[in-house]
Amino acid sequence: MAVEVGELRSLLNGRWGGIREEVRAQIAASPLLRPVHGLPVEEHRARVLEQARMVSQTRSARLFFPREFGGEGDMGGALSAFETLALVDLSLLVKVGVQYGLFGGVIRRLGTRRHHERYLRAAMTMELPGCFAMTETGHGSDVQSIRTTATYDPQRQEFVIHTPDDDARKDYIGNVARDGRLAAVFAQLITGGERRGVHVLLVPIRDERGRPCSSVRIEDCGHKGGLNGVDNGRLWFDQVRVPREALLDRFGSVAPDGTYSSPIANETRRFFTMLGTLVSGRVSVAGAGLSAAKLALAIAIRYGSTRRQFRAPGRDEEVILLDYLQHQRRLLPALATTYALHFAQEALVGSLHDAGDGDSPDEAEQRRLETQAAGLKAISTWHSTQTIQTCREACGGAGYLSVNRLTELRADTDIFTTFEGDNTVLLQLVAKGLLTNFRDEFGSMDTVAMVRYVADQVVGAVLERTAARSLAQWIADAIPRSEEGTNLLDREYHAYLLAWREKHVLEAAARRLQKLMANDGDAFSAFNAVQDHLLLAARAHVERVVLEHFMAAIDRCDDAEVKALLNKVCDLHVMALLERDRAWFMEHGQLSAARAKAVITNVNRLCRELRPHAQQLVDAFGIPEVLLPVS
Amino acid sequence: MAVEVGELRSLLNGRWGGIREEVRAQIAASPLLRPVHGLPVEEHRARVLEQARMVSQTRSARLFFPREFGGEGDMGGALSAFETLALVDLSLLVKVGVQYGLFGGVIRRLGTRRHHERYLRAAMTMELPGCFAMTETGHGSDVQSIRTTATYDPQRQEFVIHTPDDDARKDYIGNVARDGRLAAVFAQLITGGERRGVHVLLVPIRDERGRPCSSVRIEDCGHKGGLNGVDNGRLWFDQVRVPREALLDRFGSVAPDGTYSSPIANETRRFFTMLGTLVSGRVSVAGAGLSAAKLALAIAIRYGSTRRQFRAPGRDEEVILLDYLQHQRRLLPALATTYALHFAQEALVGSLHDAGDGDSPDEAEQRRLETQAAGLKAISTWHSTQTIQTCREACGGAGYLSVNRLTELRADTDIFTTFEGDNTVLLQLVAKGLLTNFRDEFGSMDTVAMVRYVADQVVGAVLERTAARSLAQWIADAIPRSEEGTNLLDREYHAYLLAWREKHVLEAAARRLQKLMANDGDAFSAFNAVQDHLLLAARAHVERVVLEHFMAAIDRCDDAEVKALLNKVCDLHVMALLERDRAWFMEHGQLSAARAKAVITNVNRLCRELRPHAQQLVDAFGIPEVLLPVS
Repeated sequence: MAVEVGELRSLLNGRWGGIREEVRAQIAASPLLRPVHGLPVEEHRARVLEQARMVSQTRSARLFFPREFGGEGDMGGALSAFETLALVDLSLLVKVGVQYGLFGGVIRRLGTRRHHERYLRAAMTMELPGCFAMTETGHGSDVQSIRTTATYDPQRQEFVIHTPDDDARKDYIGNVARDGRLAAVFAQLITGGERRGVHVLLVPIRDERGRPCSSVRIEDCGHKGGLNGVDNGRLWFDQVRVPREALLDRFGSVAPDGTYSSPIANETRRFFTMLGTLVSGRVSVAGAGLSAAKLALAIAIRYGSTRRQFRAPGRDEEVILLDYLQHQRRLLPALATTYALHFAQEALVGSLHDAGDGDSPDEAEQRRLETQAAGLKAISTWHSTQTIQTCREACGGAGYLSVNRLTELRADTDIFTTFEGDNTVLLQLVAKGLLTNFRDEFGSMDTVAMVRYVADQVVGAVLERTAARSLAQWIADAIPRSEEGTNLLDREYHAYLLAWREKHVLEAAARRLQKLMANDGDAFSAFNAVQDHLLLAARAHVERVVLEHFMAAIDRCDDAEVKALLNKVCDLHVMALLERDRAWFMEHGQLSAARAKAVITNVNRLCRELRPHAQQLVDAFGIPEVLLPVS
Repeated sequence: MAVEVGELRSLLNGRWGGIREEVRAQIAASPLLRPVHGLPVEEHRARVLEQARMVSQTRSARLFFPREFGGEGDMGGALSAFETLALVDLSLLVKVGVQYGLFGGVIRRLGTRRHHERYLRAAMTMELPGCFAMTETGHGSDVQSIRTTATYDPQRQEFVIHTPDDDARKDYIGNVARDGRLAAVFAQLITGGERRGVHVLLVPIRDERGRPCSSVRIEDCGHKGGLNGVDNGRLWFDQVRVPREALLDRFGSVAPDGTYSSPIANETRRFFTMLGTLVSGRVSVAGAGLSAAKLALAIAIRYGSTRRQFRAPGRDEEVILLDYLQHQRRLLPALATTYALHFAQEALVGSLHDAGDGDSPDEAEQRRLETQAAGLKAISTWHSTQTIQTCREACGGAGYLSVNRLTELRADTDIFTTFEGDNTVLLQLVAKGLLTNFRDEFGSMDTVAMVRYVADQVVGAVLERTAARSLAQWIADAIPRSEEGTNLLDREYHAYLLAWREKHVLEAAARRLQKLMANDGDAFSAFNAVQDHLLLAARAHVERVVLEHFMAAIDRCDDAEVKALLNKVCDLHVMALLERDRAWFMEHGQLSAARAKAVITNVNRLCRELRPHAQQLVDAFGIPEVLLPVS
């Protein structure tokens, strides 16, 4: 295969390729946008703020904001720009993500006209550095249980923001320790003596000269395991008063007399609608994690392609690391899965963009987006963490030097599996989404029947997309009749296997849940007994979706050489996945022992065949040369 | 089970329990021996040096050195003390390890009387800070190919040490950038115009006032991904002259006229004998990694036992994290395997001690020790890396704050999988050892026959140790006849499964190697084609040995309650191992699909049953309270 890297790069660039290339050129031209390492915390913070201010003057910032406030209203473009900026320093990505995505995003999505007019432009230009004060020390994953209160005082037409105790202090909040002036504070709204659930209010925490506001206590979270360019901090509010207009009132407003009203009657539904703000953040974190994984792979593959160690018997030169099977096995399947996740990420960004930043009036589409974002964020960030670690080890001692970036990437991305939603909690969300998606529509249908219906839809959808006759037959009798007659590298067979697994795991989990509930009736015990099963269902779902996006990307490709190469990359991705999970497929009659062994052989063979293309495959990521270590 | 933590602690303390408790008390009483975080590099280095100087005045230092030079000559005690000190700051462990284990160790093991008299006491007291200059930029794993030269000049009776180019500079050397004065330099010895292979010479790099010696160039490796309390650096020698006596000449000496002589005729054998120095270093790294894993588990289990999140339907209080099945699944199998590795480590320390620090005149015992140290180092450090990462994630955002130690443990131990031998290279060494251990004795025996013999020995040894009648039957017909009739939690069955796997993988790898060699004859291609197979054989070997040590520890225990608890921990360790590798056992007819599923069910059940004991199990590690984070 004589592949043109340019062709491959342009395919990876995708729909927002122009913006990606623009940001790459900007990075190459800006001495300020260079990675640093080993800086003391305060210097690092100052540098990242300076970088963020520079970005605020560029299109990357404008893309995220609506046209009427000076922006360009291009969510897909904004996310693509952020993904590229992440390569410079993940602290910059997070700093910008807090300012635009979270602070700007919550004002745009939960605020109304007056908030937009007053704040959006200043958020975009960073004249008004802001915070997103959601998490409390005692409640991170379970936002609904936060305990900061916002009590309406109709006499003075003000809200009183209060932190009842240390457990309810806002914690880990970016932009708090040093730069933030206005905080979007999540609090339990109380009016007329009644609790109305979680709402968001804008609360000043510093004045224009950076002095803390009175009755606001600010504490620095101190040194962290990474991302030390971001000034995370804690906030306590001691009966802090803000005007009635401080409430972001799109989904819940309080009249001057204290009367509460909301377009969404159900409190839980209202809560989850408000939390929709988190979708673009999750997508952004997944994308940044993947950027870090790509950079790590580019570093490790470059190193592995030149570094030699040990002389082979009868040969003159020492062996190049990447010529060792085990070195290939460590790096190339990770590279293949990074490709798969890249295309899934690109597709998710596209869906989010087309749905107007996950603010779609189509509730089913909005829910689907939330599920996909949660699932892909979990799978991608775990993949990134593991891939960067593997790359560090593959570069040995050189990989441990900060100048070579790998340990920084590893340390910075570590928290990606936790923030914007703990991965385990997110996968539970996906599982719940899969189990309940259609409940509303089918009313009395029992859980198993409901889940079976959902699962059939899934398989039906695969069928439709791949339009495969043989697939229809396979599904008809559940187990491929003649395993030996089916090519292990048949893509439709791959899609079938992953879809079958998703369907089976989901049905089985639902059946177990139903049985446990019938026996004992304690919902927590039942849920807990099948928790590992539910998490597997979620992962199976995400992995099936990821494969479909990879398949779609290959279909889109019209360069024969690139297509052939991508097919091989996809083969390796699937074989590595099957190798990892082959026990499950054997346990469920979908792989014979002989075939499972053949999967391993295929991983080895594909590694060997892709090895000559490894450098091209990472070159196509288009990482600016200035961001790669010299040694 | 009403277990006394004290009983369990004393069992874990083992043979050098007195020393462990002594060092713990010393830590508790010394304000200098407290963890720090976020220090600038130079402050951190200064602090670690101060800590190391303090340790040099204690028994921990003396234990390592021979009695006649002021020490106590207690290798097992020294390793147990270092393992405990590792809990304070892994930089301290490495600093002390470089000074005593590597620098002191190489003088003791490769030097002769005059070196011992001149240097050992000063090494112990740290009056003479030293370095172990083995690794070069171009050669880390392949030490035999290093390119620094030591050329003997009979005219002046001196050696000329020279660095031919940047690729041959000494790199990543601890104690070089700031403190070291004398370096033990690995170089190719040349005398009479002939190369004599790698030897070690003592070369001054700084004078008593800390000024670099002339013609020695020193460079700082700079900021690293962790262990920033250690001053790693690079060294170049530009025709540096040292006296003839600078050669550590136990295994190779040069007469004044330049005549070379050695008690070991074969150059390769001589080389590996010299490298025996690394054994105690590898054991120490494995132990320090396990200490870090224990500390991480203690932190995560304490957090998970108090932290609550999400209210269960129909319950008043929120659910404690460790009551979630998935949280148990993340932490408890890791805890169980940490116990298993602890006992294997303890046994290895004992063997090393009894063999006189791996300097045994019994060559077979020495080789066995080297193999065990290499294998356990690889498996333990990978386990530690993964366990600490899991613990960080299990503590969410709190886990990311440096004050809570997890990210520091993770960053510091990261390089453990690389230094003192890259883990992959070490496992290859183990595989090679398994394949060739008996070659010398059996001369013409072909590889497969030889390997089969080795494998039979292995299984025979298990048989002997467990003295199990049923085991003999199982082995007679290779596959347990009635899988259903055998209790999945029967310990002899566990031992059988792991021994069978080791035997089978080893035989199959040997058979494949032989066939490939017969077909094509290129040794590298043949080796490379089965590399993954060989690595699996090595892992299977180590895991079988680890289980035996766990079983032996349980046998030693005479407290019925503790024994019952340990049996359950061992069950979980084995079930988690089988769960991970159940595909292999299915592929090789050792587990049916139904039984493989039962393994998963057993992991869940054992997690549930051990959950009430989780806190006790980590309390028994005896980690000084002052080393645990307060929050």
